[in-house]
Amino acid sequence: MSSSFGHIFRVSTWGESHGSGVGVVLDGCPPRLPLDRAAVQRDLDRRRPGQSRLTTQRDEADQVEILSGVIDHPTLGSVTTGTPIAMLVRNKDQQTGAYDHLRDVYRPSHADWTYDAKYGVRAVAGGGRSSARETIGRVAAGAVARQLLAHALGIEVIGWVDQVHDVDASVDGAEITAKLVETDPTRCPDPEAAARMTAAIEQARRDGDSLGGTVRLVARGVPAGLGEPVFDKLEADLAKAMLSLPAAKGFESGSGFAGTRMTGTAHNDPFEPGPEGTPVTTTNYSGGIQGGISNGAPIEIRVAFKPTATISSEQNTVDLENRATTLVARGRHDPCVLPRAVPMVEAMVCLVLADHWLRQQAIDVL
Amino acid sequence: MSSSFGHIFRVSTWGESHGSGVGVVLDGCPPRLPLDRAAVQRDLDRRRPGQSRLTTQRDEADQVEILSGVIDHPTLGSVTTGTPIAMLVRNKDQQTGAYDHLRDVYRPSHADWTYDAKYGVRAVAGGGRSSARETIGRVAAGAVARQLLAHALGIEVIGWVDQVHDVDASVDGAEITAKLVETDPTRCPDPEAAARMTAAIEQARRDGDSLGGTVRLVARGVPAGLGEPVFDKLEADLAKAMLSLPAAKGFESGSGFAGTRMTGTAHNDPFEPGPEGTPVTTTNYSGGIQGGISNGAPIEIRVAFKPTATISSEQNTVDLENRATTLVARGRHDPCVLPRAVPMVEAMVCLVLADHWLRQQAIDVL
Amino acid sequence: MSSSFGHIFRVSTWGESHGSGVGVVLDGCPPRLPLDRAAVQRDLDRRRPGQSRLTTQRDEADQVEILSGVIDHPTLGSVTTGTPIAMLVRNKDQQTGAYDHLRDVYRPSHADWTYDAKYGVRAVAGGGRSSARETIGRVAAGAVARQLLAHALGIEVIGWVDQVHDVDASVDGAEITAKLVETDPTRCPDPEAAARMTAAIEQARRDGDSLGGTVRLVARGVPAGLGEPVFDKLEADLAKAMLSLPAAKGFESGSGFAGTRMTGTAHNDPFEPGPEGTPVTTTNYSGGIQGGISNGAPIEIRVAFKPTATISSEQNTVDLENRATTLVARGRHDPCVLPRAVPMVEAMVCLVLADHWLRQQAIDVL
Amino acid sequence: MSSSFGHIFRVSTWGESHGSGVGVVLDGCPPRLPLDRAAVQRDLDRRRPGQSRLTTQRDEADQVEILSGVIDHPTLGSVTTGTPIAMLVRNKDQQTGAYDHLRDVYRPSHADWTYDAKYGVRAVAGGGRSSARETIGRVAAGAVARQLLAHALGIEVIGWVDQVHDVDASVDGAEITAKLVETDPTRCPDPEAAARMTAAIEQARRDGDSLGGTVRLVARGVPAGLGEPVFDKLEADLAKAMLSLPAAKGFESGSGFAGTRMTGTAHNDPFEPGPEGTPVTTTNYSGGIQGGISNGAPIEIRVAFKPTATISSEQNTVDLENRATTLVARGRHDPCVLPRAVPMVEAMVCLVLADHWLRQQAIDVL
Repeated sequence: MSSSFGHIFRVSTWGESHGSGVGVVLDGCPPRLPLDRAAVQRDLDRRRPGQSRLTTQRDEADQVEILSGVIDHPTLGSVTTGTPIAMLVRNKDQQTGAYDHLRDVYRPSHADWTYDAKYGVRAVAGGGRSSARETIGRVAAGAVARQLLAHALGIEVIGWVDQVHDVDASVDGAEITAKLVETDPTRCPDPEAAARMTAAIEQARRDGDSLGGTVRLVARGVPAGLGEPVFDKLEADLAKAMLSLPAAKGFESGSGFAGTRMTGTAHNDPFEPGPEGTPVTTTNYSGGIQGGISNGAPIEIRVAFKPTATISSEQNTVDLENRATTLVARGRHDPCVLPRAVPMVEAMVCLVLADHWLRQQAIDVL
Repeated sequence: MSSSFGHIFRVSTWGESHGSGVGVVLDGCPPRLPLDRAAVQRDLDRRRPGQSRLTTQRDEADQVEILSGVIDHPTLGSVTTGTPIAMLVRNKDQQTGAYDHLRDVYRPSHADWTYDAKYGVRAVAGGGRSSARETIGRVAAGAVARQLLAHALGIEVIGWVDQVHDVDASVDGAEITAKLVETDPTRCPDPEAAARMTAAIEQARRDGDSLGGTVRLVARGVPAGLGEPVFDKLEADLAKAMLSLPAAKGFESGSGFAGTRMTGTAHNDPFEPGPEGTPVTTTNYSGGIQGGISNGAPIEIRVAFKPTATISSEQNTVDLENRATTLVARGRHDPCVLPRAVPMVEAMVCLVLADHWLRQQAIDVL
Repeated sequence: MSSSFGHIFRVSTWGESHGSGVGVVLDGCPPRLPLDRAAVQRDLDRRRPGQSRLTTQRDEADQVEILSGVIDHPTLGSVTTGTPIAMLVRNKDQQTGAYDHLRDVYRPSHADWTYDAKYGVRAVAGGGRSSARETIGRVAAGAVARQLLAHALGIEVIGWVDQVHDVDASVDGAEITAKLVETDPTRCPDPEAAARMTAAIEQARRDGDSLGGTVRLVARGVPAGLGEPVFDKLEADLAKAMLSLPAAKGFESGSGFAGTRMTGTAHNDPFEPGPEGTPVTTTNYSGGIQGGISNGAPIEIRVAFKPTATISSEQNTVDLENRATTLVARGRHDPCVLPRAVPMVEAMVCLVLADHWLRQQAIDVL
Repeated sequence: MSSSFGHIFRVSTWGESHGSGVGVVLDGCPPRLPLDRAAVQRDLDRRRPGQSRLTTQRDEADQVEILSGVIDHPTLGSVTTGTPIAMLVRNKDQQTGAYDHLRDVYRPSHADWTYDAKYGVRAVAGGGRSSARETIGRVAAGAVARQLLAHALGIEVIGWVDQVHDVDASVDGAEITAKLVETDPTRCPDPEAAARMTAAIEQARRDGDSLGGTVRLVARGVPAGLGEPVFDKLEADLAKAMLSLPAAKGFESGSGFAGTRMTGTAHNDPFEPGPEGTPVTTTNYSGGIQGGISNGAPIEIRVAFKPTATISSEQNTVDLENRATTLVARGRHDPCVLPRAVPMVEAMVCLVLADHWLRQQAIDVL
């Protein structure tokens, strides 16, 4: 079950970094959704390595093949059939031998030791299943979810890089557009901050070091009523989705940690009559979610990503025999995962929203 | 499914704030666990209202009745049978009429409007299912999980209040004990900070206002290898568990958001040979979890709780007909949920760890 | 997970035969369903022991208490809220001591040995969790499902006893009504067969023996389109539901085993134009299900129940020390479970149909 | 969720009859299982079309590619890693155009109408997802399960054709071997019956007709204690697994329907002391399962398959506009699915047993 996510709109990913390929099976996508295959590829292109000088230089085109669940209908065009959508991306640029020096040593803050503790065996090259290549399946399925949400509800899900190391962007979530995010390889829509982030990332690469940061995301057009009370609160499922991403270490919904320093009087979001006969809030400290359920306001979250664990500097570690040793890791990697984390964060949010919207259909029946 | 949590060690809670009672069914607890019923009650006592002047004055003894799944065995004593453990707490101090003034108006930053958007009907009194009384079932089941973890693995799970509004505690996670946490009603083990928190909470009550804060938690003795790669990472399930708690708005694992301002060189946790033939880390920025899997170090998390939404000051809001109005809420409530959040946070962590430990049993088989 | 059933309309039962009580939590029932509490009790009355001389003489009123999830709404009356519905039946007529002679010996064809093999401990009295009292929770939840199906879709679910030992009834499924079934304590609507069944059951009781038989069931008004292809076919979930009942050993859908002796030419159900613009079949060998999905025709199934394992004759068996011994079982039991199996079979069918209807809501969205 | 099966050892299949291919993702297989890839292919060869003159003449080699989850370890050889095992079989012999005459008409007793009722769109060629090609994923995953069960527990799972139309075999389940089953293309190990079955099937093909029959199966070496009480009884999950197979219409465990005509005195399986210190039964009317849990005796089941719905004779039906018409179906098909059903039945039994064995690991912990 570890590689599946969602209750109704449910994805199961598979694949290792340096195996035959990676992929996903998406079960529960409604039938008759017009599917733009090129748009799926576009989201993968935003995730793929080598897209800019800020990312790892592994050369993967990451061309997706949709194997099932979509037909070219005589009148409807390319549509989903309601049956599982399997998608496959072949690995091309494996350099398995490049990882031989890592076979007998545990990379600090990687998943090497914990995989061995868990499984007693692992695919060494490229981190195997713990590689960020695993997220290809998420992004592909998320691209389908995004189309479903846009088609059925007009929902927009937009993430951006809000901070890299000590560089903080200044971005108005109400004004952000997907296009704006894509104007810079950093995916930070504040040009001044983007330039400083670029410099910091390039310096880190030269230093054999790495940087972390935060992604912010806004989802607009989410109808009120999504999210289940108690365990499957919308923000609970978003938190899980985010912390399931490689290198994620923190999550905030709405005011988050900063909100804990406000008083209730200031923090409560007053209601006023909304134009559609339902209440709207005049502030949004709740981040669009109250009692675990969407309230119609934009959903706003923030995700922390630690500095990439792979660095080129020498590090103290132990080998498989529990002997002290040092490691100088080689292999291609991102000095900062933030720019490529944006499509991953968006994909996971789309998966959560699609699943909860479909769950709601079984509630709105009488 | 919204009221169930866990894959193998699985809880299903039920009940409304002012209905007949609240409870839980716990399925998947292993058989032959010696169960200390009094210890279950003790965890509920730490959660119950009216335990100190810092909490709501609703008077509930919250006596639990264990209805099934535990027998008094002739030789083994009180033990689980492996079948579902149902636990029931009757509501006693309902004051349903006290909520009549809330029937036609939406309380800001509560779940009133979102429940109506979702269900089209709701139990008004005390917030119905959205009340923190729902967490009784979690705490009762968590108390069973805690006993399982202690009995089988010697695991200790200890949370404490680390911040209330602008008061920050200074606590060494390595030194904390459960007893230390219970020495003050705030559940803050830093006496000086506890005194200031107490003053701040009492002032907020007088002001008709409310405060938020953070809970920190450490889990010691967790074996390496728990947590599933990909979606069910240990920190993903912890994040979901935490954000499923009422009023929770943020989650951090290990270095969290602060870690994003470090470089990889500083942030990576070096390994050194451990005494049991397996690696140990010399720092713990990972918070005991690497690649989503426990590494044997203490698990460290932090949870943000917003200021209580119920305040006594006048607020702008709308009524059920979407007309502007004002609300002065009455009814008993906590001006700050933090002290009572501690047993809730601990319970959810125990549920997550118990579930992942049992899941691991199906992996360690060959 | 062993005590939960259903994906969206999901029940979790709990309780032992001679513990405090038995019950169920039903999660996922849609909100705003008018709920007739008396009708829930009526289904439990049809299941309860002591209802006629054909059943066990254990005296249990089986009065159900609905603890949550249903409110008395000012204008809507008694309605569901969409939150979990917990229902509790207290055990009253426990005679725990009556089972002491079974503590050290395994009853043949019961669950004593297998529970010990599985759990290493068990509640001895009355079979503990393996008792048919466990089905109280199913029948209570099934009664809610029945009301949902009737209210939303006009579905009728009617089972009856079709065979007891060597007595076969002759019943036209197209003519059967719920009232007709209830005219005789056997729940066989063929009066002549019912009389012979009664005689056979009474003779078996006198002989210290027991009898088996079959239940047939028809579900009318099920819309076309319910059931998922592949693993969750409607007949697969019905088969699971039926074989999960105590003493069930066989299941047929439509023509079942007899159909294997027909040729395809005879067995295929020809389509003709239906009055509602959709096809109808002129025969129903498919039992209302094709490709695992309902086709609009009545759903027809048949379930085999073995003779009750509890008999009063002396039997060869072994004790807990694996020594040969003999057993003369005492304790109250049904010499034939068939009459009481009818409400259980109906309840499980209602649960399956309600769940699949709700699942379909997440498919019919575009 | 419709295309997933199992709780811990969990398969998700995908693919249409005439799409790019079909496949499966198997999640939850324990790590370090030596995997014989050729044995996976052998089970697929037993399922593939064109293997004998008794089956459809569609020409598919059904070569499986294992894409992930298995590595060639320097010392352990080919072993599972504990991560998802994705397997892919490309469709080769699509003749999509051959199905054009079926685009506007519903084939009787097929899934054409019900798919349209459910989804409002479908892949017409070859039945799309309702094709028996879907079972390729099951058989591939079942082959892994079979290796796990054999490796860890020495379990043998053997099915055979026990009846075709009016030809009944006479087979002693205690003597059956996998090799014996494979001696004849019918997979009936009674040579005399096999010859008559062959003649009957060939005659049916000549007549443009089709035949049904039954598969029996025995699983030896299953330890006592597998299966969960209540809903996930071993026979309930077996029943679901069997009825999820295309064309299955009935299921029996142990004595099944015939057992309903015995009395309890005759039907109960007496215990006697077993050689390993645990009880064994002297008869096996229970079919190796008591109270839903395996008792250590061989598991015995029987499955009914209806006559193939595809026949070449003219049939009455309706078109998409609900107008009466006739159909003479063309396209390749099996006149009798029984010989190819054997590996499917075995695969599903292996999946159920592997899942329940792994579930039991989370029970046997204290």
